[in-house]
Amino acid sequence: MRKISNKLNVQLIAETLLAFGINHIVLSPGSRNGALTMQFANDKRFKTYSVIDERSAGFVALGIAQQIKKPVVVCCTSGSATANYYPAVTEAFFQNIPLIILSADRPEHLVDNFDGQTIRQKDIFEKHSVHNVQLSESEETDDLTRNMLLTKYALTDCIHQSAPIHINMPFSEPLYDYVTAPDIVIDNITIEEKVYPEIDVFDYMRRWNSASKKLVLVGMHSLNDKLNEFLNVLAKDDSVVVLHEVTSNIHHPRFFNKIDQVIFPYPEDELEDLKPEILLTIGQNIVSKKVKRFLREHKADQHWHLDEYWQPDTYQILTDEIKTKPEYFLEQLTGFINPKTSDYYNKWNRIRVNNEKKHNEYVKNIPFSDLKAFDSIIKNYPENWQIQYGNSTVIRYGLLFNHQPSNPIFCNRGTSGIDGSTSTAIGACIASEQNTVIVTGDISFFYDSNALWNVNIPNNFRIILMNNGGGNIFKFIPGPSETDVVEEFFETKHHLTAEYLAKMFDFEYQIVSNLSDLENAYADFYSDSKRPKILEIDTKNAANDSILRAYFASIK
Amino acid sequence: MRKISNKLNVQLIAETLLAFGINHIVLSPGSRNGALTMQFANDKRFKTYSVIDERSAGFVALGIAQQIKKPVVVCCTSGSATANYYPAVTEAFFQNIPLIILSADRPEHLVDNFDGQTIRQKDIFEKHSVHNVQLSESEETDDLTRNMLLTKYALTDCIHQSAPIHINMPFSEPLYDYVTAPDIVIDNITIEEKVYPEIDVFDYMRRWNSASKKLVLVGMHSLNDKLNEFLNVLAKDDSVVVLHEVTSNIHHPRFFNKIDQVIFPYPEDELEDLKPEILLTIGQNIVSKKVKRFLREHKADQHWHLDEYWQPDTYQILTDEIKTKPEYFLEQLTGFINPKTSDYYNKWNRIRVNNEKKHNEYVKNIPFSDLKAFDSIIKNYPENWQIQYGNSTVIRYGLLFNHQPSNPIFCNRGTSGIDGSTSTAIGACIASEQNTVIVTGDISFFYDSNALWNVNIPNNFRIILMNNGGGNIFKFIPGPSETDVVEEFFETKHHLTAEYLAKMFDFEYQIVSNLSDLENAYADFYSDSKRPKILEIDTKNAANDSILRAYFASIK
Repeated sequence: MRKISNKLNVQLIAETLLAFGINHIVLSPGSRNGALTMQFANDKRFKTYSVIDERSAGFVALGIAQQIKKPVVVCCTSGSATANYYPAVTEAFFQNIPLIILSADRPEHLVDNFDGQTIRQKDIFEKHSVHNVQLSESEETDDLTRNMLLTKYALTDCIHQSAPIHINMPFSEPLYDYVTAPDIVIDNITIEEKVYPEIDVFDYMRRWNSASKKLVLVGMHSLNDKLNEFLNVLAKDDSVVVLHEVTSNIHHPRFFNKIDQVIFPYPEDELEDLKPEILLTIGQNIVSKKVKRFLREHKADQHWHLDEYWQPDTYQILTDEIKTKPEYFLEQLTGFINPKTSDYYNKWNRIRVNNEKKHNEYVKNIPFSDLKAFDSIIKNYPENWQIQYGNSTVIRYGLLFNHQPSNPIFCNRGTSGIDGSTSTAIGACIASEQNTVIVTGDISFFYDSNALWNVNIPNNFRIILMNNGGGNIFKFIPGPSETDVVEEFFETKHHLTAEYLAKMFDFEYQIVSNLSDLENAYADFYSDSKRPKILEIDTKNAANDSILRAYFASIK
Repeated sequence: MRKISNKLNVQLIAETLLAFGINHIVLSPGSRNGALTMQFANDKRFKTYSVIDERSAGFVALGIAQQIKKPVVVCCTSGSATANYYPAVTEAFFQNIPLIILSADRPEHLVDNFDGQTIRQKDIFEKHSVHNVQLSESEETDDLTRNMLLTKYALTDCIHQSAPIHINMPFSEPLYDYVTAPDIVIDNITIEEKVYPEIDVFDYMRRWNSASKKLVLVGMHSLNDKLNEFLNVLAKDDSVVVLHEVTSNIHHPRFFNKIDQVIFPYPEDELEDLKPEILLTIGQNIVSKKVKRFLREHKADQHWHLDEYWQPDTYQILTDEIKTKPEYFLEQLTGFINPKTSDYYNKWNRIRVNNEKKHNEYVKNIPFSDLKAFDSIIKNYPENWQIQYGNSTVIRYGLLFNHQPSNPIFCNRGTSGIDGSTSTAIGACIASEQNTVIVTGDISFFYDSNALWNVNIPNNFRIILMNNGGGNIFKFIPGPSETDVVEEFFETKHHLTAEYLAKMFDFEYQIVSNLSDLENAYADFYSDSKRPKILEIDTKNAANDSILRAYFASIK
């Protein structure tokens, strides 16, 4: 006997979600959302996950949605619970991850009237969502119809714009009454197809073919075989340079995957020579500040941004907004391109080989440190493991190394926050069912320590914690060390380790502080187990900042 | 040599804050707010506290402001950091605590353009704040003047409305350049006085004196000797009944301090007889749902709400909004009242004595359990310690017992969230310099475990952790146990203890699981120490829910 909420609007929302193919629900405990919890948790068509801390729950849902590429619901009780979703909502908004915030609320007339757990939930995420809906509690036919339409439009936007939406549902008591046969059944629903604007590809083709310096810059992008394939075609052309970062998940020997290393060695006065006629950008945020400065200071004649969601003028020269899926556009474009004789590729490439050699030599000879550890970690990723990187130093180290195509890479660069990386990685591991390792820094790890307070963590989830005893990023960036208060207010030095959290949340745990112990640890760390594992790498005593500075000096 | 940011707007905001007498700053590490951090941390006129997790930092600031009754600044870097303040902002908004969110931002033209750590910060707290300001980065005289005026108006609102405001400051690099002599000095500033509306007290006096059933219901209110004094005068009148909860911080033998116990024993049909002619409400949220139902179902002829900030129609009968400080109004009213012969007080009081006896008898004879532990904890609060209660079960237990006037009581009942109670208590302990103990439930404690990640925690801070192994509130409220998923999705049972967190964050720690160990623990627990302490009370194996149910049955 399945217990079904007797609230028609609860049945309605559940059935509408299913009709849209949405069935992953991250639930946080509470009373006001009790009817929703009962409905979802008792219906086997839904996959439900209980996560207590809503801040973490938001990121877990984001991690699930990131993998399944479909909307995921996070559902909480009324009051400040909802506000705890805010960090994940901002990340989802800028990373284009479809998240459905389904918040239970008190009846509208109790808002601002000193009722328990009552805030102004309506439209609370307005600035970082694409659709906000306040459902009615009424069960009149007209109101049910209206609620269904509102929900349908909201879900459609969530899918079409691949972004967060917020559905706020007021509930009166009693909250837990149930029936055993549903009153509302939705057999099927017409889901509107997304319409893409018509694009004059021939015009782009002509412009492309007439330019002899074309720079394709690929930002954060999830694994996409088609995109990779078409970019490979584009790149077989000496007038084309493809720059990207590890978060772009594209691979080809002709692509330049380490932006800073190729730009750094050039003296300022030679950079003008690398300026493209056409800049084609694809995907989302780029970590490298160097390339942003280069492109802002050496302005391309045309800047095409190819993305179905955002048209940011990152380089302050945007000329063409191409609002479609990159692979759609590139499929057409690559059908008509004529490779062009040009020295553009060679101009970029001439220092690359040498650069790679310098990198290898330098890294080979340095003592144990963050940089040395990363060299080892990245070389030892097992095949087909998913890699999640934390912000902020960690991802920057990641960018310095070559990665294997069999290791898809994710990092929350929508807002580049340190707040939910571990939770996101757990969500991703749950949904992908793929072996997953997150590499995270200490501040980011401890910030999101409630991520570990989650009964759904799969046994094949792994954490590599780079613990250098504080926010070392503030040592690398020039400035903070000049303030006289760097240790107390920037680095916020600490002596914490993950040992106690591992015991508390039942993770296997090991700590290493030299290279040979690290290299010996992998076999066990990546082996199957009955519990998830943490490998902590202690580099507190290493000269991490001077080694990194010297690294950049060495590749110049 | 004091390092002063060379950014004129940084100097301007710092000097303006000081001119307003605002000097407590909770800083979270980040680069974009580096100039602000350098400015505040290097200036001895400011008291600065570093708290890494912005969610906790927001509540720490709230706790400080709760005690000093002046605005406190929380300052963070750009991006999702700001969003992590959201839960504390909602609590401050509904609890009328003056919080200044000072967020650093990227220059405005970079918003929505894929820059790092950039979200839509402008007006992000609009729904839960009373003033939102976007400062200009320009250092032109006109812009500086405008920034100063904007800041002044915002700070004035923060003080007058005793509520959160948000000041968003964009910053371009370089962020850390400094000078050693200030460019901006503000000698003094005219701060507008708050104007209260004129109130016709004689009219209220006449109405008061002509009614023979007057119920004064006092919600959450900070310690206020004047208020207590005037309420004592009011209460010397058989036509007046004063009901309040422990969070009201008022004390008099004629006051009824346990609302549920006085209402519970009355059969429904006798409640109409307790209905007042005039309901006078003071202060903020009331925990008791019983009294809300009583007052909504048995409507007073007049409902006066006396508060300078909020005029909520909690009981759906509000007739008079008296927008002034309660003590101002009561001072005048009590000058003209004539006590009236009435049986109203006795009607309420007749069962009280008996009730107290039943309470004592019941509690005396029960086995070790949450209820028994609370009886012991509350009887053993040392004199002059400040008590902070967590949500949600804990405060409900607290309401069942008498408290001593020398123990001021605080609880985040603005939103009644479980999210920041420990952080708030730490802020309160820091600012009051008073010995402080928080009594918290396990879910609330673990939710806010990052509260312990704070180098500013005073050694006289204490935590009593009531650990019953899960969200036991869901056992008490009828409903969840009917859902078939109560343990997994409501109670979210766990086997966690605070032992490892205590080790990690260097707290003294002790766990007890019976009454005699508990009673033996107090002497050491409340004694001076070089570290803060946690006393964990394990009631996992107790029949907490049936004991509480039987308690309420017994006082009927």
